[in-house]
Amino acid sequence: MKKFEEKTLNSEKIYKGKIIDLQVDEVSLPNGKTSKRELIRHPGAVAVIALTPEGKIVMVEQYRKALEQSIVEIPAGKLEQGEEPAKTAERELEEETGYACRDMKPLISFYTSPGFADELVHLFIAEDIYKLENASPPDEDEFVELLEVSLEEAQKMIEEKRIFDAKTAYAVQYLQLKERLKEK
Amino acid sequence: MKKFEEKTLNSEKIYKGKIIDLQVDEVSLPNGKTSKRELIRHPGAVAVIALTPEGKIVMVEQYRKALEQSIVEIPAGKLEQGEEPAKTAERELEEETGYACRDMKPLISFYTSPGFADELVHLFIAEDIYKLENASPPDEDEFVELLEVSLEEAQKMIEEKRIFDAKTAYAVQYLQLKERLKEK
Repeated sequence: MKKFEEKTLNSEKIYKGKIIDLQVDEVSLPNGKTSKRELIRHPGAVAVIALTPEGKIVMVEQYRKALEQSIVEIPAGKLEQGEEPAKTAERELEEETGYACRDMKPLISFYTSPGFADELVHLFIAEDIYKLENASPPDEDEFVELLEVSLEEAQKMIEEKRIFDAKTAYAVQYLQLKERLKEK
Repeated sequence: MKKFEEKTLNSEKIYKGKIIDLQVDEVSLPNGKTSKRELIRHPGAVAVIALTPEGKIVMVEQYRKALEQSIVEIPAGKLEQGEEPAKTAERELEEETGYACRDMKPLISFYTSPGFADELVHLFIAEDIYKLENASPPDEDEFVELLEVSLEEAQKMIEEKRIFDAKTAYAVQYLQLKERLKEK
């Protein structure tokens, strides 16, 4: 849909980075006036709800420099150029947790911050994971600790603010809803 | 928590914008090596699940330049300096939809993109909204169209990808779960 479309009058590339690019667009608004839009370009990412045979949720704790703290999240990572999201999901799950799966099912894709960024997160669910003997390690600048938590523990971690990012909150809520639907 | 802390060796301010700032930090990693982190500073935002007396969900359609398309979202907006999130939520609800409420209840706060941005979204729920006679208009560079949809319609819009941002997907799932809990 193109309702209220903002036409680009000028686009200034401010920064081209390893992961994100920043550009500032001058746009014409529906009322004929002009405005500026600060826009982040991001390659997109994947996240995985991975469940162990015991029904635990696989999480990773890692330091997030943007937040200056370490938080607990479901495994995730950015897309490499030309990589299929399902492949990225398998790769990130292996690198961050040492788990593989037989069936990486797509659940939903959502933009994380449509007001300023085009980052699209593809969320998958892997319900048949198994430990790999010789899993590939994480990226060399990535340090993660594996956690396996029950749904109740995950809900508690949300209350305690050890989990508080959008994709993981969505994932925990997804599993709560799934549980409820099963009970019916 | 500070596990796997990355100490800042150097921080370069790349851009200071109207809404976001970009900095690139050089950090020392837990293994002694160094790396760069591209970081977006954002003032934070609010989003509101607003329900009409008929039980419809209040949504707004707006053009998102970052995505080059218009999408349907729950009302949202960024925090002004020093503004309490609940106040921002009331202001944005009024400006974008013409609705006010008596009780703006906090639900959850989550980081949208912890890998590169510190944007924290405070999600509220307003279950007792009413139309204002003389509501404040949106910002002068903001064009939104009001929609009121049932939960079923919202779920359909997710399938059709008219809704596909994280906070709105979370909100719809929240209402689905609430519905299920009521049925018990």
